[in-house]
Amino acid sequence: MLRAADIVEDRFPAKGFYMYPWYGLDLIKRVIKHLEELLDETGHKEERYPSLVPLSVFMKEKDFFEGFQGEAYLITETLRKEKLDEPLVVRPTSETIMYPLWVKRINSYKQLPIKIYQTVNVFRLETKMTKPLLRLREVTFFNEAHTAHKNLEEAEKQVKEALKVYMKFYDDLAIPYLVIKTPSWDTFPGALYNYDLVTVLPDGKCLELGSVMNLGQKFSKVFDIKFVDEKGEWKHVYQTCYGISERAVGALIAIHGDDRGLILPPEYAPIQIIIVPIFYSDEQKNTVMKKCFNIKKNLEKEYRVHLDDNVEKTPGYKFHYWEMKGVPLRIEIGPKDIEKGEVTLFRRDLNVREKVAENSLLRKIKEIFSEFKKNLKKKAEEYFKKKIVIAKNLEELEEHLKNKPIIIPFCGKEECANTIENRFETEILGFIENFKEKLPEKCVACSSKAKHWALIGKTY
Amino acid sequence: MLRAADIVEDRFPAKGFYMYPWYGLDLIKRVIKHLEELLDETGHKEERYPSLVPLSVFMKEKDFFEGFQGEAYLITETLRKEKLDEPLVVRPTSETIMYPLWVKRINSYKQLPIKIYQTVNVFRLETKMTKPLLRLREVTFFNEAHTAHKNLEEAEKQVKEALKVYMKFYDDLAIPYLVIKTPSWDTFPGALYNYDLVTVLPDGKCLELGSVMNLGQKFSKVFDIKFVDEKGEWKHVYQTCYGISERAVGALIAIHGDDRGLILPPEYAPIQIIIVPIFYSDEQKNTVMKKCFNIKKNLEKEYRVHLDDNVEKTPGYKFHYWEMKGVPLRIEIGPKDIEKGEVTLFRRDLNVREKVAENSLLRKIKEIFSEFKKNLKKKAEEYFKKKIVIAKNLEELEEHLKNKPIIIPFCGKEECANTIENRFETEILGFIENFKEKLPEKCVACSSKAKHWALIGKTY
Repeated sequence: MLRAADIVEDRFPAKGFYMYPWYGLDLIKRVIKHLEELLDETGHKEERYPSLVPLSVFMKEKDFFEGFQGEAYLITETLRKEKLDEPLVVRPTSETIMYPLWVKRINSYKQLPIKIYQTVNVFRLETKMTKPLLRLREVTFFNEAHTAHKNLEEAEKQVKEALKVYMKFYDDLAIPYLVIKTPSWDTFPGALYNYDLVTVLPDGKCLELGSVMNLGQKFSKVFDIKFVDEKGEWKHVYQTCYGISERAVGALIAIHGDDRGLILPPEYAPIQIIIVPIFYSDEQKNTVMKKCFNIKKNLEKEYRVHLDDNVEKTPGYKFHYWEMKGVPLRIEIGPKDIEKGEVTLFRRDLNVREKVAENSLLRKIKEIFSEFKKNLKKKAEEYFKKKIVIAKNLEELEEHLKNKPIIIPFCGKEECANTIENRFETEILGFIENFKEKLPEKCVACSSKAKHWALIGKTY
Repeated sequence: MLRAADIVEDRFPAKGFYMYPWYGLDLIKRVIKHLEELLDETGHKEERYPSLVPLSVFMKEKDFFEGFQGEAYLITETLRKEKLDEPLVVRPTSETIMYPLWVKRINSYKQLPIKIYQTVNVFRLETKMTKPLLRLREVTFFNEAHTAHKNLEEAEKQVKEALKVYMKFYDDLAIPYLVIKTPSWDTFPGALYNYDLVTVLPDGKCLELGSVMNLGQKFSKVFDIKFVDEKGEWKHVYQTCYGISERAVGALIAIHGDDRGLILPPEYAPIQIIIVPIFYSDEQKNTVMKKCFNIKKNLEKEYRVHLDDNVEKTPGYKFHYWEMKGVPLRIEIGPKDIEKGEVTLFRRDLNVREKVAENSLLRKIKEIFSEFKKNLKKKAEEYFKKKIVIAKNLEELEEHLKNKPIIIPFCGKEECANTIENRFETEILGFIENFKEKLPEKCVACSSKAKHWALIGKTY
């Protein structure tokens, strides 16, 4: 489906690597651009760092090194088998690439906070099954933000700002999510704690949509990133980092799509309006094509419009094809429409056809596009409710675990997590922050006092 | 200078790798975006391919493999020293990455021509001295275009279109260049022939600004990229490729800059207008700052404006600082200016100050910016004329060779090139296509009939 819709080309001769044709690339770029705009609006600046880093630098922060050593690619030689002076690590993420430069670039409290981001390719040797957009060995669009602050309090505030940005980003994509705090025993290597945004895909697996880490002074002490504070004293900065990738587009496609194919919100769709001419004779053809060109010319001042003038395909074929590709609105123009001064619209949010007078076309398009996200959101929220089950005891947990993520009242203790994880071959992903239902008294596993709603499930 | 101007951070702990702060990154992105627009206008589509390719695939085209095996990085293992199933080559350019997919994606003459590009990071282990923007081990912005055609004639036409796009691109940057055809013995590995655009930097070295290659059927036969033609016969496609990198920005900075620092054309400058308030008392400060804010608010509807309100720096410091960073226009606003309803302008193309009435400010800015490129172009052309010497005999050649590239009448033979290259320790870079002066009768080296103007010089 992703290949047929020109989103991803999955026949590259190396596992976990994919190519993006124009249509998929344009969609991804529009989605990531929106994220970048939200970061710009909150005072982040874009910078660009190298992709490779000397091994000795990558190894500096021990937890981080441990966490990534199974996944990170190492370059030790050229094609001609000449050894490099020092092996280079291909970035799986850029902490150890940015921070050695921050040592040199940060001196004074006047420079703080520093809030930067970059959108780059990163590499991880995923050993599980790879999957287009979701589990990649090369993530082509990794937007990673990194910040530095004077004190822990400001770093904590930054974590909240980042979560707010990410929540807005996914709200704008009409993708439902839970915000979870990762259990201490599962925290991102090198972080004090981290939050994840998590959604559920139609197959019942959880998908991590983005992560926000409070790094405290772990990296700044190892790399010795210091600043002179207001009193003239040297202190180590406090840091946070957070990231989102083209997974966001994977979620967008998986959650909003239907039996016919993709459904793309107009804000991000590479083609917002497809015009399909309908005619049965050469005479009709001339009139219809002329009208199509005129309407296209009018609309493309405001919208991304494509006129499908391929004479070798039937209108029916074209309807299916562009529905599959998720184009939000189709305009059909035939001889009868022209006689009546009408056009036929097909909107992909509701999959319904309607006639509209040509002279109110612009107003109608505006109306449809303004309702589009609301309609997607409503459907997605209903979908999301059905996808997750609350289990208040172990029987309920076991009953649903095969197909769905489960929410349980939980005490928060690692032993108790181990018991559940071993017994049910599942994973406690984290403690939910944005779930409003009243928490029951007892942990499902140990019956001691429940402290959190915990999310349990399989992940991508 | 590049570091002070926030274009490049050159203290990364690996040779040949650089970081781009916001200011430099924004400049590079604007320049590359213009190239992408020119490619879009000529019917190219953007796609995105993986960065890594299995070694066996990279080795398929022999000349290409030979040409890159000394420079290309190879990944054989993870950080944990686990061997990969097959070594992966890190792209130095993407022929061998794109074309295995083109085999699967191209079937029919109806799909041709295919014209695509991507802007990506590529990697080459440069062994000569590395230099920011000019000689990099990681090129961060490599715009590479690749095309496929039905026959050789169309491929040749495409080469011409590509040259036209590249010439327009550098004309728009007001960067002078020569177009040369590379001698057959120096052709890009895997190409039938190639053209380069070459400029000269202030140090007298030549800089290759971009290359256009006719690949013929060399790759299509090796990778077996075939299509069914109008008669139903399977044929191998004809291919071209061409590339430009952030070197363009290196040239822009080196050629247009002066003693004070950078001079950036308004079209590409991250900050087009810098406003510097001038005051000597708190009372003045209020009036001046208010006026500055108002003017900024007015201008930023059309321009990228920054108000330097740092109270710890003097106006004089700010003048120097923003001149060094190449901001095309400065507006100084002091109490006297306000009294007279004026502002003071400083334009970086001519380095002159002038007063202008506040109510004609917008008109004046438009005027200055429309003259800016013309002024840069004029200066750059004069510069370029002085930088290159024509030598009509070996004595003249020897006299100037130390500091400057030389143009000579040349027979075109490889033996003759070897004689010159060995005797003078220089290189014949190519045969000039856009040099209009009348060609003398005799080759400077062998006195047989001259067939080309040849460009000789050292390169980056």
